[in-house]
Amino acid sequence: MEIKSDIEIAQATKMDHVTEIAKKVSIDPKYIEQYGNYKAKIDLNIWNDLKDKPNGKLVLVTAITPTPAGEGKTTTTVGLGDGLRYIGKKSVVALREPSLGPVFGVKGGAAGGGYAQVVPMEDINLHFTGDMHAIGAANNLLAAMLDNHIWQGNALNIDPRRITWRRCVDMNDRQLRNIADGLGGRTNGFPREDGYDITVASEIMAVLCLSSDITDLKARLARIIVGYTYDEKPVTCGDLKAQGAMAALLKDALKPNLVQTLEHTPAFIHGGPFANIAHGCNSVTATKLALKLGDYCVTEAGFGADLGAEKFLDIKCRMAGLKPSAVVIVATVRALKMHGGVPKTELNTENLEALEKGLPNLLQHVENITKVFKLPAVVAINAFPFDTKAELDLVEKRCNELGVNVALSEVWAKGGAGGEALAKEVVRLCESGENNFEFSYDLNLPIKEKLEAISKKIYHADSVELVANAVKQCKQLEDLGFGNVPICMAKTQYSFSDDPAKLGAPKNFKVTVRNLKISAGAGFIVALTGDVMTMPGLPKVPSAEKIDVDASGKISGLF
Amino acid sequence: MEIKSDIEIAQATKMDHVTEIAKKVSIDPKYIEQYGNYKAKIDLNIWNDLKDKPNGKLVLVTAITPTPAGEGKTTTTVGLGDGLRYIGKKSVVALREPSLGPVFGVKGGAAGGGYAQVVPMEDINLHFTGDMHAIGAANNLLAAMLDNHIWQGNALNIDPRRITWRRCVDMNDRQLRNIADGLGGRTNGFPREDGYDITVASEIMAVLCLSSDITDLKARLARIIVGYTYDEKPVTCGDLKAQGAMAALLKDALKPNLVQTLEHTPAFIHGGPFANIAHGCNSVTATKLALKLGDYCVTEAGFGADLGAEKFLDIKCRMAGLKPSAVVIVATVRALKMHGGVPKTELNTENLEALEKGLPNLLQHVENITKVFKLPAVVAINAFPFDTKAELDLVEKRCNELGVNVALSEVWAKGGAGGEALAKEVVRLCESGENNFEFSYDLNLPIKEKLEAISKKIYHADSVELVANAVKQCKQLEDLGFGNVPICMAKTQYSFSDDPAKLGAPKNFKVTVRNLKISAGAGFIVALTGDVMTMPGLPKVPSAEKIDVDASGKISGLF
Repeated sequence: MEIKSDIEIAQATKMDHVTEIAKKVSIDPKYIEQYGNYKAKIDLNIWNDLKDKPNGKLVLVTAITPTPAGEGKTTTTVGLGDGLRYIGKKSVVALREPSLGPVFGVKGGAAGGGYAQVVPMEDINLHFTGDMHAIGAANNLLAAMLDNHIWQGNALNIDPRRITWRRCVDMNDRQLRNIADGLGGRTNGFPREDGYDITVASEIMAVLCLSSDITDLKARLARIIVGYTYDEKPVTCGDLKAQGAMAALLKDALKPNLVQTLEHTPAFIHGGPFANIAHGCNSVTATKLALKLGDYCVTEAGFGADLGAEKFLDIKCRMAGLKPSAVVIVATVRALKMHGGVPKTELNTENLEALEKGLPNLLQHVENITKVFKLPAVVAINAFPFDTKAELDLVEKRCNELGVNVALSEVWAKGGAGGEALAKEVVRLCESGENNFEFSYDLNLPIKEKLEAISKKIYHADSVELVANAVKQCKQLEDLGFGNVPICMAKTQYSFSDDPAKLGAPKNFKVTVRNLKISAGAGFIVALTGDVMTMPGLPKVPSAEKIDVDASGKISGLF
Repeated sequence: MEIKSDIEIAQATKMDHVTEIAKKVSIDPKYIEQYGNYKAKIDLNIWNDLKDKPNGKLVLVTAITPTPAGEGKTTTTVGLGDGLRYIGKKSVVALREPSLGPVFGVKGGAAGGGYAQVVPMEDINLHFTGDMHAIGAANNLLAAMLDNHIWQGNALNIDPRRITWRRCVDMNDRQLRNIADGLGGRTNGFPREDGYDITVASEIMAVLCLSSDITDLKARLARIIVGYTYDEKPVTCGDLKAQGAMAALLKDALKPNLVQTLEHTPAFIHGGPFANIAHGCNSVTATKLALKLGDYCVTEAGFGADLGAEKFLDIKCRMAGLKPSAVVIVATVRALKMHGGVPKTELNTENLEALEKGLPNLLQHVENITKVFKLPAVVAINAFPFDTKAELDLVEKRCNELGVNVALSEVWAKGGAGGEALAKEVVRLCESGENNFEFSYDLNLPIKEKLEAISKKIYHADSVELVANAVKQCKQLEDLGFGNVPICMAKTQYSFSDDPAKLGAPKNFKVTVRNLKISAGAGFIVALTGDVMTMPGLPKVPSAEKIDVDASGKISGLF
């Protein structure tokens, strides 16, 4: 059998015009702002027509702890959306939008896979509707206004050594991680150390994704802390009077982007913050709109459930007043065997022992969802050809012991039809009535106790240790009035612990918090347990070398 | 009388849907890619339908040497487009697209003025259809691939001290003019000196504007020189295999953007290269499309006619095979009085003596057009309320002595109706038959002689002097095979000479060329007569502080 590449499958699909997709969810044409024939932004004034309409069911797709074997979370999300349509339900998908930078590195693209993709995949992976560029421009306008303020006399008494605001670009460019700028003499700025992050790591991205409307956006932007004065007082974006112009740059980026799956299910692809230093899920505006327009809104969160689902629930749902009806936890037999110690080269062989050893990773995520957050869950096994019946049966048995069903998902190979079983179980969970959703911690706890709650309840650590510097920052943040905001953990995604080498469900470890940083605009404290890379580099042979476009405008090499 | 601001006039206008604008020039709907309701990109495959259609008349709008009094070149271009429609002619306007950066500085915006504007002005001045961001991304992808190549082992033997490719951002940010990047140790790049230009100064912008299609674009991108090896051989974008991915980023940016004037005349706003280090006019794709779609294509070139018109004619028209039918030279009585020595504060008083003294600036531009380039010309006097009849009569008399008519343009105050006289004279010139258009120099002349031709024939200098370094560069460029490309002069726009203090029509001066640099992708040699600022800074109170957007998405403070 010849296997088609993702881009070949995507380009072979005849898309519906975006106005047809909008019609499926009854969007009044006056709110549609087309970007070509297959992409549109939806004017937020649509909210006036929808606000009294009841919400659909919110379904979160999350996953086990990621391994190099892959899980297929986005693919499952897209396939579940199509699967729900396949069984006659009015579903809408809400996903993160991919960053341009990694497309040119090793990644190639990110819009699902196989027969469960969102399209037009080339556009989604390249400039799409310009949101990333708008975020970059707003970020860099603030940086330019900050440095200009210092250069023009520094009336706010900003300490150039205490500037926390970095510049950004949507590119994998290690050369920009650490720079010295303002060089070249008096007329060319004020020399200082600086650096670039990739755009998705900008706080503006987190702010955009958590803002409910333009008014909220401006208020959040104004609160962003850009640095500190010589006497250590915070200096904000509002002090620099930058929030109005930044919001003007972001007004269209705030509008959700409508596209479609290969099976023409409406899909919002909007916002994509980092899942370590930020909360890692698509925008509040897109999720809320999808909930009003569909009976089922299927959305995903970044990394494994310890990071992505925790933040989705404790940060996004809390801030936006959302309540999920069901959670899908995606796993592959291959990845579970890796958690059980099998190297990547030997994953195609049945290995029940390794699977049994790796299963606690899945089971711990399941229990976190059902017992800590008290939400109904289903495990979706993303099927691979080498999975054996004995392996699948073992996964099912262990999950059933926790009261959770398993659905085999074949959406990569079969699209929505391959998601029928999963869709039916999701519907059953959603219709089984109200749940007792709880956050994993109370906002009014001291910062240290919130860190402990996440580390003990979700990671299953014995304790949390704050290094001396973090202890000091903890007090400073509480003194500045930031004691009662949610915590955004920046921890390795490769382990429940803060050590990427500890696979499975590690026990007897402590979490070490090295740094606490306030993202005052986003409204959370970032707790760093190690170094987080906020500017990737390109590999020896960047995928950019293979990307091309022919004379007719057709792109190749994206996958 | 209450004077409305430009943005107030623009926002008070009811725009036609962009599909209605496209219909006016018979664009098949299948080629329209909407960006919202009032902007569209036109698919270049339209060319297959149009290539055998005869061209309309090409009308270039240029101006006297700019002064702080202003000339209103864009306003006149827009108003002439509307004026031609007013007298029943099928006109299309083709303009440069404004850069985002300066919007936040002092400038506020650039889309014409008064009742001669292009709309939607907020969009045009902010992200528009994303062309600037695409250019920035392509520029910075090349930079990232270049630095990554060095970091990964430097197989091409690139000398990090001889890199000529700079990064760019569409922002006024003096802090980035000179930086050191790659700092922070071995894993974070290779330390070197670097710097940022504003995006419109990127060679990618010039390349995009001169490319006829995707194939030409890729070939030009591949030829771009990014630096030199340790043994001084040029290293190109093609050596880094970056042109395919860059072209993929630019494929939509290459498509002309269709908008409208306040009077619903179709207007292409596409591409905006610097007019000093580049050629300063809108894209070849837009101009050629406008010529196929309209009976009259009205376009403009940057700065005064010595720079903008010269480059439009010697570079753009030569490369694209275009031939103008008429040239409009815009002047104001106020600016001519400034050229005659009157300070800005005293321009509202009649001063025939100063006007007589300043008039040679206009007359020399007129003679350059009619006698060097052998093109029919008209002088458009952009009317101001304090202009006196005696002053206007004097301008007319002196122009008539050169065989050129003068038309009073009141388009700022009256829109197309105020451009009737100008439109009629333009039509008369276009219909008076073929002209004897000539370039100001032959491509096969040695570089030095091309510099002399421009300096003597257009600037009226006595001679050209190359400093020692430029003499060396001249030989190097000829040795590298770049002897027979056009010259792009980077000279002050404030004087015919290379000294911005010399107003009017200076005599007895020499032009000093300090640097010669090849833009191998664009296909011209940049001759620098002094320092050119390629990264502006923000003023003490940036206009960004006043820009805002309200809860409904309406932008204010752009003017």
